[in-house]
Amino acid sequence: MTNGSKPVSGEDALIARYFKPLATDPGAFGLGDDAAIVKPTDEDIVVKTDAIVEGVHFLTDDPPDTVARKALRVNLSDLASKGAIPAGFVLTLALRSVEDAWLAPFARALGEDASSFGCPLLGGDTVSTPGPQMISIAALGRVPAGRMVRRSGAKPGDRVLVTGTIGDATLGLSVLKGGSIAQALSTDPAARDSLIGRYRVPQPRNALAQALREHASAAMDVSDGLAGDLAKLCAASGVSAVIQAPNVPLSAPAAALVARGAVAIEALLSGGDDYEILCTAPEDRCDFLIKAGRTVGIPVISIGTVVAGTGLPRFLDSEGRELALKHLSYSHF
Amino acid sequence: MTNGSKPVSGEDALIARYFKPLATDPGAFGLGDDAAIVKPTDEDIVVKTDAIVEGVHFLTDDPPDTVARKALRVNLSDLASKGAIPAGFVLTLALRSVEDAWLAPFARALGEDASSFGCPLLGGDTVSTPGPQMISIAALGRVPAGRMVRRSGAKPGDRVLVTGTIGDATLGLSVLKGGSIAQALSTDPAARDSLIGRYRVPQPRNALAQALREHASAAMDVSDGLAGDLAKLCAASGVSAVIQAPNVPLSAPAAALVARGAVAIEALLSGGDDYEILCTAPEDRCDFLIKAGRTVGIPVISIGTVVAGTGLPRFLDSEGRELALKHLSYSHF
Repeated sequence: MTNGSKPVSGEDALIARYFKPLATDPGAFGLGDDAAIVKPTDEDIVVKTDAIVEGVHFLTDDPPDTVARKALRVNLSDLASKGAIPAGFVLTLALRSVEDAWLAPFARALGEDASSFGCPLLGGDTVSTPGPQMISIAALGRVPAGRMVRRSGAKPGDRVLVTGTIGDATLGLSVLKGGSIAQALSTDPAARDSLIGRYRVPQPRNALAQALREHASAAMDVSDGLAGDLAKLCAASGVSAVIQAPNVPLSAPAAALVARGAVAIEALLSGGDDYEILCTAPEDRCDFLIKAGRTVGIPVISIGTVVAGTGLPRFLDSEGRELALKHLSYSHF
Repeated sequence: MTNGSKPVSGEDALIARYFKPLATDPGAFGLGDDAAIVKPTDEDIVVKTDAIVEGVHFLTDDPPDTVARKALRVNLSDLASKGAIPAGFVLTLALRSVEDAWLAPFARALGEDASSFGCPLLGGDTVSTPGPQMISIAALGRVPAGRMVRRSGAKPGDRVLVTGTIGDATLGLSVLKGGSIAQALSTDPAARDSLIGRYRVPQPRNALAQALREHASAAMDVSDGLAGDLAKLCAASGVSAVIQAPNVPLSAPAAALVARGAVAIEALLSGGDDYEILCTAPEDRCDFLIKAGRTVGIPVISIGTVVAGTGLPRFLDSEGRELALKHLSYSHF
């Protein structure tokens, strides 16, 4: 994705029309060069890449503005969990064809999110594909040197905390795919729309980045499923954890579906696409994190405890019985 | 692409097996975290992303080691043209399935190139796709602050120079697709293999990066086609150019095909995938660039002159007549 002052191809015309207006950062050179520049500071540069694929991470009928927001936000979510401030992103867009009705709202929403999250478009590559459309973004962020919040810092005795609510996105996907969840919500369009919205447009918790740097011992974002992602955090830290499943925060629609037996809590604990923050913190830092969340409007809730050991984290029900999780998280393979 | 100490999914197992061994840079955290770190210096960070798509940039039957090398090298080529030293890369791998026979040589070759070009794997994302396989890489490099070689610095009177040879890759692709070029080379397997090799495995000119910083007024890599890419460079610089087409360097197989009338020179000037460097330099710096190329074994040849104006660059034949180029370069759309 590069663009001189005169388009010499359809690809250049596409870039000039849709994406050049987004390249507001001076380091992007108006997408008019082969590469972009991120200026040096004394901070570490954090690098992350995440891709979304049509039919896997978004559906063909999803509105293009939601696809754009999801593509950027899944990366912003990682930067947030690492305590990093967004610095910019590069975009790979694999398209079947150039349709203004799709590209115009896609680019407009991408620009809005880039602006509101302070993460400008720096460059990219637009390629044709005969297959599913795919958007791959590599995002850069900054943290004070040596201060990236790692997965590996959890210690026995730390509390396990999570932001927002868990399981909405997997329910939203179920609604979009039809079937029993869609039927269970057939008379509640507000709940249906709310869950679909959570699947299509994640709410990355970037406003919590600084508090995570200051108080969390370990953090990651919940993208593949809480149970599996917690297992990864524990493995990286060389610890295990015990989670009180009833403490895991659910939205009102999700809680109602669980109460009615329309969905098992296990499915919510292992479903993907939450894009909430999972973190650990020493007991005496939890209140700081929770209060910092309150200040920026992000619920932060303690759901369990880090324990010594190398076994998989255990999820206990209200009577202390261990839940049997058939699988821990979404896996592509 | 993240990996704790114990795989919790097939995706993690894939990453642990094939890609963790490549993550030798301390900032990659052994692919065991959500993001990677690039340490600050007083240099600018150069960012570039380029993707290759099965059936578009590589063929389904291409050996996986060549696919890996091409995916990384198309990005290394951009860093080279900007005068940047590679710092590392993140990888998005969209796979239909996990096949050891494909992934093992892919990862091995990627690791070899990462090592030999000094561009370590920092992180990535592995996703499933029902469509063509795709590899998107975002590469980071470093240049002394403010010294990235831009497209926009060409001045009237500068010489236009190019490295290596032009048109081999598009001929190699023609050979792989069968048809008249393949037939014309049916008795010359060495020429066929050489052209196919140029299509499958570009030779990025990173050894020339410092000389470009010191002597070039503008530069870019030739990826979509010399004529189109020169048009972009001229547009970015607000100039035009006159090229002596007979001076454009051709390999022996390409020159023989042109001499026999099996292919028109125009097709070589507008064919893609060269991954050579196109640059401009003041007259009195050309010899420095050519000598620097000789020192590192990269032919650098003057092919024309930058002129004032905003028209498309003109390619003249040996009698000074302008070649009519039907299209300037490969375009995805």
